Amino acid sequence: MISFENDYSEGAHEKVLARLVQTNLDQEVGYGFDDFSLQAASKIKEVIKCPEASVKFLVGGTQTNQVVIDALLKKYEGVIAADTGHVSSHEAGAIEHSGHKVITLPARKGKITAEAVDKYCEEFYGDVNYEHMVIPGMVYVSYPTEYGTLYTKNELTKLSDVCQKYEIPLYIDGARLGYGLVSEEADLNITDIARLCDVFYIGGTKVGALCGEAVVFTKKNEPPHFLTMIKQHGALLAKGRLTGVQFLELFSNDLYFEISRHALKMAKKMKEGFVAKGYQLHIDSPTNQQFVIMTNSQIEELQKKVRFSFWEKLDNEHQVVRFVTSWATKEENVDYLLDLI
Amino acid sequence: MISFENDYSEGAHEKVLARLVQTNLDQEVGYGFDDFSLQAASKIKEVIKCPEASVKFLVGGTQTNQVVIDALLKKYEGVIAADTGHVSSHEAGAIEHSGHKVITLPARKGKITAEAVDKYCEEFYGDVNYEHMVIPGMVYVSYPTEYGTLYTKNELTKLSDVCQKYEIPLYIDGARLGYGLVSEEADLNITDIARLCDVFYIGGTKVGALCGEAVVFTKKNEPPHFLTMIKQHGALLAKGRLTGVQFLELFSNDLYFEISRHALKMAKKMKEGFVAKGYQLHIDSPTNQQFVIMTNSQIEELQKKVRFSFWEKLDNEHQVVRFVTSWATKEENVDYLLDLI
Amino acid sequence: MISFENDYSEGAHEKVLARLVQTNLDQEVGYGFDDFSLQAASKIKEVIKCPEASVKFLVGGTQTNQVVIDALLKKYEGVIAADTGHVSSHEAGAIEHSGHKVITLPARKGKITAEAVDKYCEEFYGDVNYEHMVIPGMVYVSYPTEYGTLYTKNELTKLSDVCQKYEIPLYIDGARLGYGLVSEEADLNITDIARLCDVFYIGGTKVGALCGEAVVFTKKNEPPHFLTMIKQHGALLAKGRLTGVQFLELFSNDLYFEISRHALKMAKKMKEGFVAKGYQLHIDSPTNQQFVIMTNSQIEELQKKVRFSFWEKLDNEHQVVRFVTSWATKEENVDYLLDLI
Amino acid sequence: MISFENDYSEGAHEKVLARLVQTNLDQEVGYGFDDFSLQAASKIKEVIKCPEASVKFLVGGTQTNQVVIDALLKKYEGVIAADTGHVSSHEAGAIEHSGHKVITLPARKGKITAEAVDKYCEEFYGDVNYEHMVIPGMVYVSYPTEYGTLYTKNELTKLSDVCQKYEIPLYIDGARLGYGLVSEEADLNITDIARLCDVFYIGGTKVGALCGEAVVFTKKNEPPHFLTMIKQHGALLAKGRLTGVQFLELFSNDLYFEISRHALKMAKKMKEGFVAKGYQLHIDSPTNQQFVIMTNSQIEELQKKVRFSFWEKLDNEHQVVRFVTSWATKEENVDYLLDLI
Repeated sequence: MISFENDYSEGAHEKVLARLVQTNLDQEVGYGFDDFSLQAASKIKEVIKCPEASVKFLVGGTQTNQVVIDALLKKYEGVIAADTGHVSSHEAGAIEHSGHKVITLPARKGKITAEAVDKYCEEFYGDVNYEHMVIPGMVYVSYPTEYGTLYTKNELTKLSDVCQKYEIPLYIDGARLGYGLVSEEADLNITDIARLCDVFYIGGTKVGALCGEAVVFTKKNEPPHFLTMIKQHGALLAKGRLTGVQFLELFSNDLYFEISRHALKMAKKMKEGFVAKGYQLHIDSPTNQQFVIMTNSQIEELQKKVRFSFWEKLDNEHQVVRFVTSWATKEENVDYLLDLI
Repeated sequence: MISFENDYSEGAHEKVLARLVQTNLDQEVGYGFDDFSLQAASKIKEVIKCPEASVKFLVGGTQTNQVVIDALLKKYEGVIAADTGHVSSHEAGAIEHSGHKVITLPARKGKITAEAVDKYCEEFYGDVNYEHMVIPGMVYVSYPTEYGTLYTKNELTKLSDVCQKYEIPLYIDGARLGYGLVSEEADLNITDIARLCDVFYIGGTKVGALCGEAVVFTKKNEPPHFLTMIKQHGALLAKGRLTGVQFLELFSNDLYFEISRHALKMAKKMKEGFVAKGYQLHIDSPTNQQFVIMTNSQIEELQKKVRFSFWEKLDNEHQVVRFVTSWATKEENVDYLLDLI
Repeated sequence: MISFENDYSEGAHEKVLARLVQTNLDQEVGYGFDDFSLQAASKIKEVIKCPEASVKFLVGGTQTNQVVIDALLKKYEGVIAADTGHVSSHEAGAIEHSGHKVITLPARKGKITAEAVDKYCEEFYGDVNYEHMVIPGMVYVSYPTEYGTLYTKNELTKLSDVCQKYEIPLYIDGARLGYGLVSEEADLNITDIARLCDVFYIGGTKVGALCGEAVVFTKKNEPPHFLTMIKQHGALLAKGRLTGVQFLELFSNDLYFEISRHALKMAKKMKEGFVAKGYQLHIDSPTNQQFVIMTNSQIEELQKKVRFSFWEKLDNEHQVVRFVTSWATKEENVDYLLDLI
Repeated sequence: MISFENDYSEGAHEKVLARLVQTNLDQEVGYGFDDFSLQAASKIKEVIKCPEASVKFLVGGTQTNQVVIDALLKKYEGVIAADTGHVSSHEAGAIEHSGHKVITLPARKGKITAEAVDKYCEEFYGDVNYEHMVIPGMVYVSYPTEYGTLYTKNELTKLSDVCQKYEIPLYIDGARLGYGLVSEEADLNITDIARLCDVFYIGGTKVGALCGEAVVFTKKNEPPHFLTMIKQHGALLAKGRLTGVQFLELFSNDLYFEISRHALKMAKKMKEGFVAKGYQLHIDSPTNQQFVIMTNSQIEELQKKVRFSFWEKLDNEHQVVRFVTSWATKEENVDYLLDLI
């Protein structure tokens, strides 16, 4: 059955896979010091125009959030995040497992504002007993958010400013970074991302790789002994080449963005198809996740033919369901879906 | 430069890679519930002749040790291990990061004995103040050990018995399991492993896979909510197919053992070559790691031509160095090495 | 300067201190196995009419919350609490430090409802991906709450029922338990508390002791190796007699409740005095904490004469301030305060 | 039955208790900011002749070790200690609970040497893979040791030097500090202790207080937000006055050392008595713990009359037993013991 359930249903983009095959028997040193990882890091630094950045490759999103947040927070600090943020709700307590609180702010369509962060910190430090509470040590946002929405350049700039005001890093979770940056609604590019935050990651798992996320420290701020901390979290690949080769290919010849554009083209077609047929969108998402309101009976019918996700119940008769495209989505499958509805 | 430095210098066995290519665009559900993972688990249960086992796939060795040990230990327990065990020394404190002590016993050639475990536990519970100490909650051994040596069936049986006596699980780290089981000196097979321990893992990273370790709970003892604990450690692959497909291939048509036999054939040739040329072995290893005593000047000369590992200094003129073979080792490279020495 | 800032400004009740003096040179065994601790535990079990309870003494409130919650939660579980709960906000992340998430529900006057807990759990288990989230493993409430309010017997009964429905323990933080139970508005007593919850603690630090909290497991549910876990948290007193003697005295001759009644008599007089002089109460607290609305200039004037706490800003001209009474509050000081306002 | 089992069998020295009684109803602010704690800190800084020191009071020994070590170690570091050290063996894994490994070196009579630390660190950093291991971040020693022995000034100076060489702090556990410093064999005083280490604690629980240990950072190195970390460990006393008052009295008029001298006078008398009657000492301890070799039948007989501790079995007929004196030991009881043997 054709699936629009998520953006990790297939393996890797064919060019990525081909590169793995082609380099397979080259002998390389382990733990991310292989030539492919070094070259991939160089490519990424070029693309983000940040020569002083340092780039390390990890395997998955929750792992990356856990390692990066734990490596950057001091022991008495917590991370500020949207209550709908991935770290707040869908990582099985991975942040708390490392000893840190996720300090949640109410989100609007997946986003938090610089003003809300500022207010939180101002009230926090205004409290005479603040040392009895978890000290905010980082701000976490997702680009795009878990709801498919995008921060504007202005919004991110203000978040960056408020982080500088309180001298805490801004961390951007880019699990679907490609699908955000190539959106028609994006008013910033990857160099802006690199400039505005202190650390971000470029998602590979959802954008063309078998696995892998590229963590980028952009302000000469890779934590001391970061490799040891990666190992301590059980997150150090012996065959670092696996992620290195994949990111090398993704960041050669614009592949990462090219395949992201395909996903958004498919998403747009799908979205317009739904709207044309009179469906209401729950959120007007400019990226690869589309949230559609359907009646229970429409859902019941449709799920006999294709796979998609339940998002939330709206009322007794309606639910929000999610359809996701990716680098691998075939146009014929979108057409098939649109025929069905 | 040709490398004998370790058993993770190349990518994956060609059949494993071919299977990844062949299945690449099949749409599969995430997080290890894909068909490939389910089939791979079935294959493994068949091979180990343990239908009630449960099998889960993780990415790397340290991660696997951390997740399994944390999932099985109670909060006030520690794990008994050889002081030379991987968890004791080379995992950057991954076990302690999860809150647990590694209780070390002195190893002899990488091994601990049932007698030593028994004595430790007996003295422990004989101490009136034992509740002020870390309670032993598991025994960890490696097969083969970090020194390439093998437990006999009798030794493992006695370890199994002592674990039952104290009602704690026996966990076998099988990072190089294949290279142990196909050794001429091995007097047990994988069904014995499954029968004698409570949980073990079948190493993929070092035996033909790009990444991946198969954790096997053999006594209907998969911990409740194990998936949640995997996620909490940042160890849950979105594309569980990646490890599933690889283990499916490795456990089809005896591939895992076939490629292990190749590695040991190469190791034997290498070992006999060293001995024939008058070199002394530091440890008489029956598996894919060979520990050779060389003079400083021999080392200096040889490392201009091939890569290998320094193991330890013996005296001012001699060192122990390690040469490793794997599924990927070419016989011509072994010949080249033997010509050089 | 006279202080109404909190209920831990003085040392211990004179009888408690006298008992410490009187027993000072008796030789006792350590770690809570002394006669005084054993007798104190017996007294408490009598008073709560729960012979099968087990009672252990710890030093302070945050420590008790951390140890009890960590000892009862499984590694993948979190604790449900009001967002205004002490564990949520004022313990510097002590719960997260032990690896557990505090799952917050919006509070109303410091309280959460059984309905809200039920809804949370129902939606949680209704989510197909719940295993990717922190599993609710306990409910935490405070009696009285951080806002001085009280759960009714009916409210606690329903919370108890919902906990049984989901098979998770109900834990009551009784840092100020005495000040709650003797309130005119309390419709339950300590035997109800013991019956309705699975574990609670009887606060000593704020109710007549130098230090000490008595943890009571009421359902034969003291966790295995609880002593080891106390020690592991650095919470095991060598001289367990220190808390034992104090609780022995507090639970002899009704002292604990008698001194609690004094505190509430003082609180009532203070509250009525404020109201009589036209002040508005922010919360109608029936216990020893009173929350009064004052103008900035009133506050400025008053704090030259007595000490009290700032609670929150209401608007540009008004703030909520807190006045607290305790077992040690002198009636002449309350009179002095009422003269000042 | 008279007890020589440990040095925490009684309450507090009478002067300490008197001071608690005398100050009992003074109203003080919480959390260690009370006047008594501030004065006690000042007294201690005078006595150790280290005006720039910072002093904080905690409740017990394991708690202090846990908080200090966790506050000073970076997340990827471990603490070097004797394998017989309290943190290594008798704290129920409190250090590992905070995520840190205890890196053990073999002890001789409870002590480790600077040479052994140096060798460990040199080999550690000489290992090309050291980033895969726990990085040594601190050295922990006890003064006196768990075996009653004392480091010489020369030994501590060399440990201090090696710590400076590797830029890691030297931490001295002074649970029984008084009983060490007043020993006839001690060739250093408390100002030497303060000068040679980076942080130490002055034990109160075993030397005259009901509870309490004074942590002293001697090199302007109190960790940022140390109060928050204390709270996070559940170790912050609301009534900080409890420890403040006790240390104020202990460090007034030389009381701490005076009562320590009494304990050692009693220990000396006891030791000489044992030797005079032909008993062999297992360790020639110059402090308040005496380790005597007795036959099984001697032990059986003696334990009908007095309490003491079993230390270890020597052979089938002999055991080592421990007799401990303290500030509270009555000379008549020592005489009674010596009459019995």
